[in-house]
Amino acid sequence: MSAETKATNIVWHEATVSKAERESVNGHRGFTVWLTGLSGSGKSTLANMLEKSLWERGVRSYVLDGDNVRHGLNKDLGFSPDDRTENIRRIGEVAALFTEAGIANVTAFISPYRSDRDSVREIMKDGDFIEIYVACELDECEKRDPKGLYKKARAGEIPEFTGISAPYEEPEKAELVVDTTNQKPEESLAVIVDFLDSGGYLSA
Amino acid sequence: MSAETKATNIVWHEATVSKAERESVNGHRGFTVWLTGLSGSGKSTLANMLEKSLWERGVRSYVLDGDNVRHGLNKDLGFSPDDRTENIRRIGEVAALFTEAGIANVTAFISPYRSDRDSVREIMKDGDFIEIYVACELDECEKRDPKGLYKKARAGEIPEFTGISAPYEEPEKAELVVDTTNQKPEESLAVIVDFLDSGGYLSA
Repeated sequence: MSAETKATNIVWHEATVSKAERESVNGHRGFTVWLTGLSGSGKSTLANMLEKSLWERGVRSYVLDGDNVRHGLNKDLGFSPDDRTENIRRIGEVAALFTEAGIANVTAFISPYRSDRDSVREIMKDGDFIEIYVACELDECEKRDPKGLYKKARAGEIPEFTGISAPYEEPEKAELVVDTTNQKPEESLAVIVDFLDSGGYLSA
Repeated sequence: MSAETKATNIVWHEATVSKAERESVNGHRGFTVWLTGLSGSGKSTLANMLEKSLWERGVRSYVLDGDNVRHGLNKDLGFSPDDRTENIRRIGEVAALFTEAGIANVTAFISPYRSDRDSVREIMKDGDFIEIYVACELDECEKRDPKGLYKKARAGEIPEFTGISAPYEEPEKAELVVDTTNQKPEESLAVIVDFLDSGGYLSA
C-alpha cells in the first residue's frame, strides 16, 4: 500500500493542470492588472468595467477590491504603514493564485507604497503583472469624493488618509498610465483593453 | 464631472459579473470542496486528481494546498493553535473568492479544528461549501508517511504534529466521507465525482 501511495504521489504531480494548459484551453493568458492610484481616481470603476468588458469577449476575469477583500481576508488589518504593507502582500499572493489559475485578475487598491507593489511584481512570473497607474489630480479626486472620505479626512476623522495625511508614491515603471482627471471611464477602459490586446494577453 | 463620476459609480455595480452569470456561462457551479484529514490520508493526491478530472470534463477547477499557500499567502504563519486557525481563516476567505469567481475550488489542508472549518462554512453561501472528510487510520497514514513527517514527529523533531502531539477533530457534519485506509485513490475520486455530479455541481 505504501509503495502504491508513493506511486500515486508521483502521478499527481503530473496530474495537476498547468498554467500553460489553462491558457491554451481558455484562449487567453492568466495575468494580473494591478490598478494603483488615489481614492477617487477611478480604480474600482475601471476594474469593474474591465472585468465586464473582458468577460463579454470570453476572457475569464475577476476583480479583487476593497469590497471582497477588506471585509474578508484582510478584515484584521487597519491602515497603519505595516498593515497597508501586509494588506498588499496578501492581495498580491491571492492575485498570484488567480493568475496561476488562468484568470484575468484585476485589483483595485490604492497600494500607495512603491516597495509593496514591487514586491507583488516579484512574486509573479515575468509579464504576468501589469501595473497600471490610474492617475488623477488630487483636487479632482477630492471633488468626486464618491464615498465622502476626503471630507472626513479633511475634518481629521480619518487618520493616515492617502493624499491628505499619508503618502502616495507614484509608480516609476508602470506598464501603463491612464489619467482620469479629464478622461471618461469609457476612454480609459479602451486604452487599457487596447494595451492588453496588443500585448497578447487576450489570446493564447 | 463629479455628477458624471457618481453616475458611473452607479453603473459599475450593474457592470460586475455575478456568480450566477458566471455559472450559467461556465456550465457548472462555483463551489469549494474542502478536504480535511490527517497528514498522509491522501488529501493532496485526491485534490489534484479531482482538479484534473473536473478540468477534463470542462469544469474550471483549481487546487489550494500547502504548496501554493503555505509558502505564499500564509508564509508568516506557523503551527500553533492560533496560527492554524488564522491559516484556515485566510484559506477559507480565498476559497470563497474562487467560489464567487465561479471556480470549482479544491482545498487540501489538514484543518484539524472543527470550529475553524465551521467558520469557513459560515462565510460561504449555502451549498457552496462541501466538506469531505478524507478518513484514514493513523497507522496507515504513518506507514505511508509520504514526506517523512511522522518519523520526525515521533522523534520529537516536529512539535504539535496533528495525530501525534496535536489533536484532529473529526467532522460531525461532513457532506461526504471517503475512507482511504483500504481504498485506492481512483476509487475515492470516483465517489467524490459522483457526489458532485449527482448534487448538480457539475452542471449549471
